[in-house]
Amino acid sequence: MIDHFWAVIPAGGAGTRLWPVSRRTSPKFLHDLTGSGRTLIQATRDRLAPLAADRVLVVTGQAHRDAVVEQLPELGADQVVAEPSARDSMAAVGLAAALLEARDPDAVMGSFAADHVITDDAEFQRAVSTAVRAARAGWLVTIGIEPTHPATGFGYIKPGPAVDDVDGALGVLEFVEKPSAQVAATYVEAGYRWNAGMFVMRPGVLLDLLGEQDPDFAAALRGIAADPATLGEVWPTLPKIALDHAVAEPAAAAGRVAVVPGGFGWDDIGDFASLETLLAGDEPVTVLGDAGLVRTVDASGLVVPGSGRTVAVVGLSDVVVVDTGDALLVTTLERAQDVKSIVAALQEDGHDHLT
Amino acid sequence: MIDHFWAVIPAGGAGTRLWPVSRRTSPKFLHDLTGSGRTLIQATRDRLAPLAADRVLVVTGQAHRDAVVEQLPELGADQVVAEPSARDSMAAVGLAAALLEARDPDAVMGSFAADHVITDDAEFQRAVSTAVRAARAGWLVTIGIEPTHPATGFGYIKPGPAVDDVDGALGVLEFVEKPSAQVAATYVEAGYRWNAGMFVMRPGVLLDLLGEQDPDFAAALRGIAADPATLGEVWPTLPKIALDHAVAEPAAAAGRVAVVPGGFGWDDIGDFASLETLLAGDEPVTVLGDAGLVRTVDASGLVVPGSGRTVAVVGLSDVVVVDTGDALLVTTLERAQDVKSIVAALQEDGHDHLT
Repeated sequence: MIDHFWAVIPAGGAGTRLWPVSRRTSPKFLHDLTGSGRTLIQATRDRLAPLAADRVLVVTGQAHRDAVVEQLPELGADQVVAEPSARDSMAAVGLAAALLEARDPDAVMGSFAADHVITDDAEFQRAVSTAVRAARAGWLVTIGIEPTHPATGFGYIKPGPAVDDVDGALGVLEFVEKPSAQVAATYVEAGYRWNAGMFVMRPGVLLDLLGEQDPDFAAALRGIAADPATLGEVWPTLPKIALDHAVAEPAAAAGRVAVVPGGFGWDDIGDFASLETLLAGDEPVTVLGDAGLVRTVDASGLVVPGSGRTVAVVGLSDVVVVDTGDALLVTTLERAQDVKSIVAALQEDGHDHLT
Repeated sequence: MIDHFWAVIPAGGAGTRLWPVSRRTSPKFLHDLTGSGRTLIQATRDRLAPLAADRVLVVTGQAHRDAVVEQLPELGADQVVAEPSARDSMAAVGLAAALLEARDPDAVMGSFAADHVITDDAEFQRAVSTAVRAARAGWLVTIGIEPTHPATGFGYIKPGPAVDDVDGALGVLEFVEKPSAQVAATYVEAGYRWNAGMFVMRPGVLLDLLGEQDPDFAAALRGIAADPATLGEVWPTLPKIALDHAVAEPAAAAGRVAVVPGGFGWDDIGDFASLETLLAGDEPVTVLGDAGLVRTVDASGLVVPGSGRTVAVVGLSDVVVVDTGDALLVTTLERAQDVKSIVAALQEDGHDHLT
């Protein structure tokens, strides 16, 4: 347990590429996507509990507040902050920072998305502990994941030399956007790290860095913390911008960001193909759910038997079959990203209840 | 309408290669597999009604009697004969023959499976009318389907010269078993016909031909007709043999079988691939059921949305997706036959309720 360490869990995102499991009304963080028996947000909270104890703040959409409270009954009413609308990560994490700055002058906060999967909790906790030490020294700290392959779906962090004042932290020279395959290979070769959007810092450091870029934005967030009754009025006026762009990139350019290398397995489960990679075991067909419901002959890929019905797959390689109570998806690992076009078509045709 | 013509409809067969639509408890003849709004047995009865009016006799398993009566409410109680157990086609059609021989001395019967699909009813009726004329002249008559391709899944009929006494009928030299692809090509080239198991004859002719091969079998069938109370006792002692082997093949060798060429489209819907061929229209994905439930992107094949759920298919060619209330099948047109291995595995594992 780390004194005054607060775990902030932004729980947003529709996750349309995981349809039909993930829905607008039930985003992916509310689902058990690893077969662990815990939903992603519950697993995120479990992973942070040894560090933060009960100092947890979830920031989520108004529509998902009740579901979050139900899944995390140990949280108090003031630990689940409902955003009136989605305004990207700077507003969400910045609001948490403003609330914590007011609540606990010695607070260090770490922000960890509710819908990521991490495979080595002990190493994660070690990395966060190191990051907290750097944060206390005044750094904006990110945790840089060791790439397992030249992924094109993630942003990268370019590390520099070790920082003087904290063991195990390096300076960050630059955050770079999702690269092409060719560029990704050079990044991995050069020791770049995946940017998992994990940031650890003192709340005031984050808000002050924001204030240097956009003083009104920082003042608005601190204003809401001082008078929560103004949330509904002020929130719609806040810029829609990612924390990376609003703060992390300019701060890196100014030499004020540190990275702690994380050696744990990490995935943001962008689609069913990455879920299959994450869960794959020795069997050619990976099953998320009750394997007793799945029958296969000459098949490989991912099957999610989510409605209690028997699912039989014969003679298909790298297939994805996702069965839910009101919708069924059949695709391939290769085409898994294109599920979002189905969701878009359903919405266009007025079948919103399915999306 | 043809005086004294009786339509006999053997309604048997599990149809495991059409699982999960077809089940032991609900075989394929009870399903609408063409999207016509009529089940296969209803369509069979509709097709025969202009010829036989209400002279219809269905022979089915004890377990399916109630479903048949429900689907064909116009039939009287004595028009649906329930077999105590499945004993192949000779016993089923032979029993119908014995009942009709006793009921109507001038009867001519035609036997047509309950689960076949025919696409040109007028041509079918013309062929049957010709067959009835040949049957009245004492022939065992079969209707030979004009092959559309060198199928390996059907038996073939080798026709001989025209018979003297009936316009439009040829002698049958031989019935041959399902051939290899190479042999099938030579059959089609040589003018062989598909054997669709359609037989038209006077009941006494069928039973006398059977009596020449197996006098006890013929006597047992006539005994049941004379005293239906003995059915339960006698039935289990009857040989399990197809009418083709028991009567048609030896009768052909003796020069007593005629064939009437049928120019109508015909299929026994052996699996989902043949169903797709039968139903395929202009769209790459053929839908049996409510097309509004199906969403596809870069897909082709057959989708059966049978549970009311939305079915989305992305990036799969020649795929088969069959959705039912308690089981789902995903396979390819090429592997459609292998569905029976899934059914076998489910039975082995004690999941009989699904098969």
